[in-house]
Order: sequence, then C-alpha cells, then structure tokens
Amino acid sequence: MKHADGRSRPKGVEPLGVGIAGLGTVGAGIVKLIEENRDVLLSHCPRPIVVTAVSARDRTKDRGIDLSNIEWCDDPMMLARHDKVDVVVEVIGGSDGPAKALIEAALANKRHVVTANKALLAHHGTELALKAEAAGLALAYEAAVAGGIPVIKAMREGLAANRIDRVYGILNGTCNYILTQMRETGREFADVLQEAQKLGYAETDPSFDVDGIDAAHKLSILTSVAFGCAVDFAGVRISGIRQVSAMDIAYADELGFRIKLLGLARQAQHGIEQRVHACMVPAASPIAKVDGVFNAVVTRGNFVGENMVIGRGAGQGPTASAIVSDLMDIARDRILPAFSAPAATLKKVKQAPAGLHRGSYYMRLMVVDKPGVIADVAAAMRDENVSMEAMIQRARSPGEPVPVVLTTHETEAQAIERVVARLGRIKAILEPAHVLPIETLD
Amino acid sequence: MKHADGRSRPKGVEPLGVGIAGLGTVGAGIVKLIEENRDVLLSHCPRPIVVTAVSARDRTKDRGIDLSNIEWCDDPMMLARHDKVDVVVEVIGGSDGPAKALIEAALANKRHVVTANKALLAHHGTELALKAEAAGLALAYEAAVAGGIPVIKAMREGLAANRIDRVYGILNGTCNYILTQMRETGREFADVLQEAQKLGYAETDPSFDVDGIDAAHKLSILTSVAFGCAVDFAGVRISGIRQVSAMDIAYADELGFRIKLLGLARQAQHGIEQRVHACMVPAASPIAKVDGVFNAVVTRGNFVGENMVIGRGAGQGPTASAIVSDLMDIARDRILPAFSAPAATLKKVKQAPAGLHRGSYYMRLMVVDKPGVIADVAAAMRDENVSMEAMIQRARSPGEPVPVVLTTHETEAQAIERVVARLGRIKAILEPAHVLPIETLD
Repeated sequence: MKHADGRSRPKGVEPLGVGIAGLGTVGAGIVKLIEENRDVLLSHCPRPIVVTAVSARDRTKDRGIDLSNIEWCDDPMMLARHDKVDVVVEVIGGSDGPAKALIEAALANKRHVVTANKALLAHHGTELALKAEAAGLALAYEAAVAGGIPVIKAMREGLAANRIDRVYGILNGTCNYILTQMRETGREFADVLQEAQKLGYAETDPSFDVDGIDAAHKLSILTSVAFGCAVDFAGVRISGIRQVSAMDIAYADELGFRIKLLGLARQAQHGIEQRVHACMVPAASPIAKVDGVFNAVVTRGNFVGENMVIGRGAGQGPTASAIVSDLMDIARDRILPAFSAPAATLKKVKQAPAGLHRGSYYMRLMVVDKPGVIADVAAAMRDENVSMEAMIQRARSPGEPVPVVLTTHETEAQAIERVVARLGRIKAILEPAHVLPIETLD
Repeated sequence: MKHADGRSRPKGVEPLGVGIAGLGTVGAGIVKLIEENRDVLLSHCPRPIVVTAVSARDRTKDRGIDLSNIEWCDDPMMLARHDKVDVVVEVIGGSDGPAKALIEAALANKRHVVTANKALLAHHGTELALKAEAAGLALAYEAAVAGGIPVIKAMREGLAANRIDRVYGILNGTCNYILTQMRETGREFADVLQEAQKLGYAETDPSFDVDGIDAAHKLSILTSVAFGCAVDFAGVRISGIRQVSAMDIAYADELGFRIKLLGLARQAQHGIEQRVHACMVPAASPIAKVDGVFNAVVTRGNFVGENMVIGRGAGQGPTASAIVSDLMDIARDRILPAFSAPAATLKKVKQAPAGLHRGSYYMRLMVVDKPGVIADVAAAMRDENVSMEAMIQRARSPGEPVPVVLTTHETEAQAIERVVARLGRIKAILEPAHVLPIETLD
C-alpha cells in the first residue's frame, strides 16, 4: 500500500498517524477516546489509529491525558509535514487564521484533514474540498454539524439514494436550551441567557449562538451535502432568538405550536432557500419535542420520506466520537468527496428570493385597547391580500396596551413585510409587529 | 480493476450489475428508485448501478415498472451465476428455503449480496457473514433493520468509535401503530388489530408482528453489530403485545408512562440481555413520543451518549432507499464486515440469566373488593423482599372485581415471578397478575 506521503507500508499493520492541532476540551477528548476505546477501534478497524503528535499553546497545562509518548510541536504548522502524521485533526477553531493555514498546508503536504470547524467550512468549504479531492485526500468533518450525531454520514451515504428536497434541524444546543427553559419557566430571554452563561451552556459573548450564526454555519454545510451545491454561507438568511419573548412562547402553546430556532434549507420554486430563524412548529411534530441541549436533523428524501436523528450536538465526548469515526473511515481507505458530489461539480446555489417565500405567519401586536383597532388591522391585511387564520385578543384593559395575536394563511413573505409596514403607521399599535414564521413542516 | 467475477474492467466505467430476486413491493421499488434517481446516484457515485436481471414468480404481472431492458430469469438461482450480475439483491423473504439457497449460491459464485431479510440473518447471519468475508464479498442488509433508517451504518460506522452498552428501539411499526391507536381511542387490542388488518398495516396472520418475532429478528442483528458478538436469535426473550389491555394503557398514562413494544439489548452484569416485550417507558422519554408506524433506535455509546434515529421502518420507498444505499457502498468498493467486527472473531453471546434481570415492575391485579386483600398482596411482596413504590385502587365496588395497580422499586425478575406465584394462590385475586416491566431508560 502506498501512503498519502508516498511511503510504502503494508496495509493494516502500519498505524494511521494522527496529529492533533488544539488541545482544548475536544482535542483532549480525542486522545482520551483513542486510549480508552483502543480495543473497540481495533475490532472495527484492524489498522491502529495512533496519536503521534500534538500542538497547543500551553505545554505545561494539565489536561488529564498522558502525552508522554506523543510528540509535542510548538507550531501547529509542523504537523502538516511531520513524518509520523498521516492525518491532521484541526480543532483550533476560527474561520480563518491558523486553522485555515494549517489545513491548507496539510493538504499541500498530502495529509488527510479532519476538522470540527464549521465556521471555516461555511466560508471556505468548497475551496478546501477542491484541494483535498484533487490530491485524493479526505476532508472529513462529521463533528462540525450536530456534534456526535452522524448526520453527515447519514445524508452522504445512508440516504444517498434519495433526491433530497428539504433538510432542517435544531442545530444549536444553546438556543434550544434557552428556548426550552423559557417555555418551562415562563422567564424572559435575558434572564435565562444569564443563567445559561453561569451554567456554562452559553458563552460570555453569546452572539454566535443566540444570533443564529453558528446554526447558519452548520446549515450551509448541510445544504451543500443535501443538494450537491457549493457551500454558500452568504446565502443564508439569519436571525436569532433575542427577540423571542415569554409572551410569544405562551401564545405558541395556546395555538398548538412550539418556538424553535430552526435551520432550514429547501428546494423551493425559485431556487434554494436557506434560513435560520426562530419559528413556530406544530407541537405534535417530532422536532418540537426535541428539548434542552439536544440537536436534531430531519432529512426528507423522495423514497425514504422523513428521517430524523437526535443526539448531543456538542461537548467533549460527542465531538471526539465524531472525529474518531472520521479517522476510522480514513484508516479503512473510505474517502468520499466532502460534499456528496465531487467538489469540481458543485454548482453555485441558485438562491430563492426571500420575498417570494410562501408560508404562514404569527404576528403579535401591542395595541391600545380601544374600539376600531382590530378593524384597522384587518383592513391592512385585506389591502395586502393576506388572509387571517385566527385572532386572539384575550386580555381586556380599556385604554391600556394589550396583545393582539393573529395567524395568517399561506402568503408571500413580501406581503407580510408590507402588512407590517402598514401596521407601523397605525397609532394605536404601540410597537413594531412581532412576527414569527409558522413552519407547518408538511 | 478486477471484478468479483474475475473479469477485468476499468473502474468507474463498467456498471455495477444488479440482479434482483423477488419483484414484490420492495423489488419493484428498487427498480423504480434506480430509474427515477439515476442522476442522484451518479452524482454520488460515478459507477452506474444497473439492474441487469430479475427473477420472480409471475412474469406477466403489471408492477408499474419497465422491465424491457432487464433479463428475466425464471429461476432465481440463475442470478447467482449470471455474467451480468455483480450483486444479488435478495427480497424473496423467509429464513430458509429459496432465499438462503440463493444467497449461498451467490457468495459461492463470488457475487456480493444485499438483503432485506431479517429472519434469515437472525437465524444464519454469522454463518453467511463468514462465507462473505472469506470471499471478500459484501453481505449488506441496511433494509433488514428499521427499514429506511440508516441505523446499521450509524452503528457500524458513525458511532463506531464508541463502546456501546445499550441499544433499544421500536422495531415493529405494526405493533407501534396498534399501541398508539389503543391509547388514542381507548379501544382493546383485538379491535384495533382488526382495523389495522383492514388498512393493510397488519398481516392476515399477524403473529410475526404482534408476538414480537419480527422485532426479535431485528434486535438479534442490532445486538451483534453493537457488541461484536455472533447473532443469537435463540437468546432473545420474546413476548408481544396481545396481553396489553386498554386498562393498562390508561394506567400507564396516569402513572406518567407509555406502553411500547421495545427490543432492548444491553451489557448487564451477568452477560448480555436481549429482550423484546411490551413495557412502560417514561412519557417524557424521546422514545415514548415515537408514535404510529414509525421506527426508532437509540444507541448509547461511552463517548457519544445517546443517539436516536427515527423514520419509516417499512414500505416500498424506505426499503428501496436502504437497499440502494447498500448498492452504492458496494459500487464504491466500501465493503465492511457484516457485523462490525470480522465474522471470524465474533464471540458467542454470554447470555444474562433472565431471572437476574434487575428492574422495576408494573402489576395490575383484578381483585374482589373486600377488606384484607391489599394486606395479603403487601404480605406476598414483603415475603419476597419486593418493595412497593406506588399503589392505586381507584374504583370502589364492594364485593365486585376491581383493578389494583402497583409499581415496585428495582428488584430481580425472579423475585417478581415468585410474587406472582404467591398472588396466584390468593382467592380474592381473580386473574393471573398482569405484569409489565418498567424501563426507566436511565
């Protein structure tokens, strides 16, 4: 057998040498897993997987792992040309900078790459896949989307016989935890966020998570795998969960919905839609029942129907599990194009115009409780040809602000925008309309 | 590239020839999928997959598929040595007879095998895997367990880095449909079964499904993949859902449980437990929320934690999806040992003694409502060192039969059996105790 680095070795005897760049929680978890589960790995894959070199900032830090037989490299770039390294595992993070430089150097030096770096793939995935495939190397990233859940393998291999027309999921555990807590306790976003930060479920700067960026990174990768198109992070319409209020969550319950931050990509009439946003999903739908820090991805294929996978989307163990499963594929010479179809054939996404999206909407208006307001609201909708499905004005408090909640039948997004603009001109409506899309998931 | 049949062909150009034995719903679905999704298959896998030959009983039957370019073989055994067949797809069914003879002949003639036949694998899986692996051939069977859900791939590859200590699932859609209907309508088993038969969700002879045999076939396969042991169908303790009554379902609700037919295998203290039975699961657990004809499998690994997959466990489309994904793996030369570890290394299951199983139990007694009965019941439990967790005697009807429901703390199965024997000797208890295990799924 001829190795990636050109050296000849008898297959199945010579180990697969792994160099890990980054020894944070995840990097240490990989070392731990390979050590603790050595017999399990060997029973599946006769070629031993051995961590031969590591690189991190602080050599003296106690990580609870034995590094005595592993070479230490001060500079991660050394891993890319280390003669005992067949695969570089990049768990440094960041969409550019050292992570990108390392991966490029590894591929240039004929080393396979395994990464958990969704931001980097979202921005440079297609370009890196081209380089890897031209050199016959793996660019593997199971851990980058939904952590321990083998969703990339499921889509790229297990469901590969299907024409996929939709993929959606709960791709960010922090947001799902916050929304679940808000629903269970009735508290507001800021309050629950603060608690999540204390518990370590949310970062000090939570914006990557709560503004939907992290979910959008993952979605852009899923889109590419599902539809065989180039990764197009810029094409994802993104909003987060900051604007979700306890009141909306309570109304969702009343209307038979749950509020979830979904990442959703689908083949629509005018192109591919990619969006990340908080939305209402039917309470009875399987995705509505995925609570707390769990992730879930639903794929719909023309023969298989809907398939859902659920599991832990982050954390040391799940991420290490996904990374080592990628290493096992490489050890067994099971190398596939990164995004289902060969990178050279990936087409640019034809983006569906946002305004043409058709769907139903939830709208909450804070109005002064006086006669005639509802008539004004109804007129605004009528004038934009948007038809109302339900309306709730529960509280009565003459002269005071009260919520009026309504849901619409299916309509175009641009019509809703025009309705919102009209409502903004009605004096008795005190705040901009709170709008959430309803995803029926039919 | 050297083919299985010894002929040399340029890789990626010469198609993978597929011979299908059996043209029922599933066989026809495979032909349909390969035709309709030709472009999808080619984008993933440059080697074309072509159905070259088929065999079924009735040549004249209209199956809604075009067979004009496909060779017809009156005898399925012809597929095993057909020079245009690289892979034999067996969808005849049956644990022995023609299906087994065909698979053995195919392997003997160096043809790969793809099958959806769980009964056959449950009984002869290890032996067939040995033959396939000795010849360097695939014995692939994604469709045999949980239909369209790529659970075999998930366990054998995606979660392969983990030591698995438990796998369980809803493996029979017919039973899950019946139990869901019973709960939603309050009707009894026989009534719902009859309706399911009318709707085509249950067979005329429903025993394979409702007595748990089908689920046990699938469980024995999952056990082997999860624990790297020989397939041991005989080691599965099996009971079905005939004895589940509407009353038990109502009590389950009241106690915060759902009744599901689970197949469960786990590494216990004294060996491996394999069991299929109706049991109580916490209403809040993800598996409790899988309703209707859906299947679901939960795998627990030491690094990844719990992973669940949900989807359609049967039907033309899902089964064809799984079979063609197996064909794509073969077309890409991705051939793995059938049961994770090489068949030659699979150890015989060390079966955990049933009586030593520790768990909690639900028990419903039909008693004559008169003073002293509860005291007798409590004494029987005390005498076997079984401690009661809860007791409900809702209805009062002096002198008449009323249900008494109790749940126990964790205890040994053999202690429960002894309790049941003691209760059988109490005159005021009118029927044998209705016992269901409680699976806390902790």
